[in-house]
Amino acid sequence: MSPDYTAPLQEMRFVIDEVLRAPEDWTRRPAHADLDAATAAAVIEEGARFAVEVLAPTDAVGDRQGCRIDAEGRVRTPEGYAAAYAAWVEGGWPALAADPRWGGQGLPQLLDFAVLETLLAANHAWTMFGGLLHGAVATLSAHGAADLQRRFLPDLVSGRTLAAMALTEPQAGSDLSQVRCKGEWLDAAQAADALAGAGEHAPRLRVSGSKLFISGADHDLTPQTLHLVLLRLPGAPAGSAGLSLALVPTRREDGGPNGVHVDALEHKLGLHGSPTCAVRYEAAEGWLIGAPGRGLAAMFVMMNAARLQVAMQGLAHLEHATQRAWAYAAERRQGRAGGPSAAAGPAALAEHPAVRRMLWTLRALTEGLRVVCYRCAQLLDEADGAEDAAQRTQAATRVALLTPVLKAFATHHGFQGVSLAMQVLGGYGYVAEYGLEQQLRDLRIALVYEGTNEIQAIDLVQRKILADDGAGLRALLVELETTVAQAAARPALAEAAAAVAACCADARAALPALRAAREADPQAPLRAADDLLQALGWTLLGWAWLAMALAAADGGDAARAQDKATLARYGAQWLLPQARLHWAAAVDGGRVLP
Amino acid sequence: MSPDYTAPLQEMRFVIDEVLRAPEDWTRRPAHADLDAATAAAVIEEGARFAVEVLAPTDAVGDRQGCRIDAEGRVRTPEGYAAAYAAWVEGGWPALAADPRWGGQGLPQLLDFAVLETLLAANHAWTMFGGLLHGAVATLSAHGAADLQRRFLPDLVSGRTLAAMALTEPQAGSDLSQVRCKGEWLDAAQAADALAGAGEHAPRLRVSGSKLFISGADHDLTPQTLHLVLLRLPGAPAGSAGLSLALVPTRREDGGPNGVHVDALEHKLGLHGSPTCAVRYEAAEGWLIGAPGRGLAAMFVMMNAARLQVAMQGLAHLEHATQRAWAYAAERRQGRAGGPSAAAGPAALAEHPAVRRMLWTLRALTEGLRVVCYRCAQLLDEADGAEDAAQRTQAATRVALLTPVLKAFATHHGFQGVSLAMQVLGGYGYVAEYGLEQQLRDLRIALVYEGTNEIQAIDLVQRKILADDGAGLRALLVELETTVAQAAARPALAEAAAAVAACCADARAALPALRAAREADPQAPLRAADDLLQALGWTLLGWAWLAMALAAADGGDAARAQDKATLARYGAQWLLPQARLHWAAAVDGGRVLP
Repeated sequence: MSPDYTAPLQEMRFVIDEVLRAPEDWTRRPAHADLDAATAAAVIEEGARFAVEVLAPTDAVGDRQGCRIDAEGRVRTPEGYAAAYAAWVEGGWPALAADPRWGGQGLPQLLDFAVLETLLAANHAWTMFGGLLHGAVATLSAHGAADLQRRFLPDLVSGRTLAAMALTEPQAGSDLSQVRCKGEWLDAAQAADALAGAGEHAPRLRVSGSKLFISGADHDLTPQTLHLVLLRLPGAPAGSAGLSLALVPTRREDGGPNGVHVDALEHKLGLHGSPTCAVRYEAAEGWLIGAPGRGLAAMFVMMNAARLQVAMQGLAHLEHATQRAWAYAAERRQGRAGGPSAAAGPAALAEHPAVRRMLWTLRALTEGLRVVCYRCAQLLDEADGAEDAAQRTQAATRVALLTPVLKAFATHHGFQGVSLAMQVLGGYGYVAEYGLEQQLRDLRIALVYEGTNEIQAIDLVQRKILADDGAGLRALLVELETTVAQAAARPALAEAAAAVAACCADARAALPALRAAREADPQAPLRAADDLLQALGWTLLGWAWLAMALAAADGGDAARAQDKATLARYGAQWLLPQARLHWAAAVDGGRVLP
Repeated sequence: MSPDYTAPLQEMRFVIDEVLRAPEDWTRRPAHADLDAATAAAVIEEGARFAVEVLAPTDAVGDRQGCRIDAEGRVRTPEGYAAAYAAWVEGGWPALAADPRWGGQGLPQLLDFAVLETLLAANHAWTMFGGLLHGAVATLSAHGAADLQRRFLPDLVSGRTLAAMALTEPQAGSDLSQVRCKGEWLDAAQAADALAGAGEHAPRLRVSGSKLFISGADHDLTPQTLHLVLLRLPGAPAGSAGLSLALVPTRREDGGPNGVHVDALEHKLGLHGSPTCAVRYEAAEGWLIGAPGRGLAAMFVMMNAARLQVAMQGLAHLEHATQRAWAYAAERRQGRAGGPSAAAGPAALAEHPAVRRMLWTLRALTEGLRVVCYRCAQLLDEADGAEDAAQRTQAATRVALLTPVLKAFATHHGFQGVSLAMQVLGGYGYVAEYGLEQQLRDLRIALVYEGTNEIQAIDLVQRKILADDGAGLRALLVELETTVAQAAARPALAEAAAAVAACCADARAALPALRAAREADPQAPLRAADDLLQALGWTLLGWAWLAMALAAADGGDAARAQDKATLARYGAQWLLPQARLHWAAAVDGGRVLP
């Protein structure tokens, strides 16, 4: 068997320090002024050590054992999960990037993303449990009443309490406007007072109804789980405008049960270590978060954080699969490669052109996506902590634009990449002991949950591109084109730069074409959406390869400079033609859908 | 849950009778002169009834139970498998297309393929057991000594005996030249006599060694299994030229064990009902098939038959997944589609543009592949039974050209199609009860076994295109272009015809470009291979859509004529741009592999 996952610390540090130059940001921000590149690297290294040493050994066993509901109706997780989680909390890791006001360490989200990459690569299912902590903290911070914040935020920040997002119902999947779950005022007078107050107290609710596909609704990692439940208040109108968000803990303050029942766990393709629960609320007590009828807005704070986590799942699986494929292809000797070494007996798989294509495609996807995902985390930090308000707004807009692209592109190509790595391993890729088959099963849901990839594409074209008439996209293109222009000036990168420049030009031409198509037919952007997302995703990857090649060329390591230039050329020659195809398709007004 | 698999009898009959006009072939051939379209349809309908009523109910249970090795070391199959197989043999189905000389019914292979499609859609794992019967019969018929044929062919033809293909060893996967399994002469004098004889007697062997990944090496469906084992005889040279093929039964003539041991079953992603065996031969007795050192040639008779079976696996899963996606999308109502019906409450998924793309892509893949796969079966019948020898040769050459394309293209897009159908079902696609997750797991190995898809691409470019300097490909293009020209004359099909014509022109231009690239660099065709295979696959699909649209236009059903014209236009607009991309890539001499 090939050696298994190793955290790519050197590559991560290269991206953070040299490609994104994040340490320069930190010196400019009071909150991070004490942080330097070496400290950041040490933090990531320590998190990665946990991932590799503590978490990775629980991955395959968790897949085999899965979760179950015990005689008391409580969800039991696989062997080792609870101990690993306790160690994780003990180490203070959930609080890494959280607000110091609630006990967080206030480090950049970028570091949190880097550590998250290693956790997800080591054990995707386990990492799901803590995956909603940041989103829950953000939602409560932005929309929760002060009493809820004081009561729940410290434990959420430390991870002593976990969170679940309870949106889907049998009839309401992609379409949450069909949610039927109900909240009633527990005490009408208290509710009226709270609603009239200045956000000091949250109105109390009694919640009833059923939810489906709720990840981690119950478990044995922490005593308490906070459900963020989308529901309707008395007299709420039909549709999305009638939706409100409630916080419902699984346990009451005295530790007794709160009417939150897990009726069943789904039998599913993968992620067996993460319980996917059918939940029933029976007069469960909770609190309203945000204003009545503003549930979707509050929920989207959580959802957007979750979408970036899902993008990281794609990246993490890609990294792990890439490692597995490269290691196997270096060891396994089969056939003649037809090259100069043909006379020397069987060649390593890595020498065969058909295999080299797959190996380099895996590298291009993995390394390119890491740059773009980490760039997005850097923008999150900028949106939070930049001194200049305009810069904060611009960064937040850029994150909103990138979120659907990264969620869909990273998971789509993550899944394709895992399948490609399986192909490199041949028959061994199909059997359990090499791990890739579990990756394929675990990752597949990421194309669906937190908004299907098709929903992401629609979000991108409608809300993130057409809604501001392309302003956000044009601003992003300026950033990309700046890098392209720098690369174009280097002879070793000129060919790749030209290919990315063509993609950027396609992107600029696509904007007026999309507008015109929409004027002719309001449905036209929906037909173009998937191509548009793929086109923009590939264009971002092209930029990432150039950004890496430039940073490497300016660094001291000549071998790395040549390697990254090679990667950029490979990507431009072998992968970017797809971007051009998607840009052309996205603006092809002649295409008809039956 | 959506309704499950229904055999697409009407569509099958349309392809056989109207698109391929196979009944006209039958009237021209003495062997099939008694067969007419109605009889053929009745045969397929009866086979499909077995698939749907007997086989389909064993599919999910077989996946859950899997196979196991019992206390006696014998492989036990899931509940219902043995009974279904007994009924299948009892019904005379294995003999459908076999040679009447050995008890076969001598019906066209085309009918066998159509029935096979329904079996594979109903239960892929079960169908694997009988999957090598035709190949074993063909190998023994072509290369076996007369005494072996008399002794084993009747039971192989009837299916009372099953067959296994024992090639792979731990160190010899794609590269069979590294096979180490050994055969010794059991009786040197007998062997010398047999080798000197006129193919009347087979030399007896004693076989020792280990094989890996052997499907159905043992089971409880039949008492006897015939292994076709690739091995080395005493004094054989290293490499492929030293390989011979042996027939090794699991039981001796007296019913006693023959030293064929299954040491382990692989734990694998899918196909749990099909045992993937690690086999050990301990002085097992067998016979040589064909001449010493000619093992690969004999084995390829079996392998080529198996590759077409694998292509049918891709088609069968596509059909099933397409049915599941269309049924679900018609029932499930989520969100506003943005079209004219926007005011009428939640729309069926099938009305959403993003979903319609997926649904029509599934139809285009499924229906197009069926035409091309069935066309290949028709060519098998022509290669066997055409009156004219030149026609037989041309048909055999065409089959040889199509085999790697269909194996790789149908499984690659079959897997992608199943994943697309999962996407249509959203979260429900990921859970077991909707069946798609099993399809994804079962089908994935088809991209690997019987020669990985990358091996198929190399076979295509080296042995099937460049070896005859493109003659076979040009002959195929003449067939495609004839259909294109007919379609171009119909206004409703002119746009689609132009798109396919452009692909054919690309194909013609690719030939000299490939030759020139090879002259400059012998490895160039290996770099181009995957793109070439994809390009040709899409081009064949384009042809298939036109062929269906033409047949439908000439038939009596106006609704069908319009539907098939719509499908051809959809394919041309939404899918064929990929063909152009692959043709361009296949001849891009500027691309470098790191």
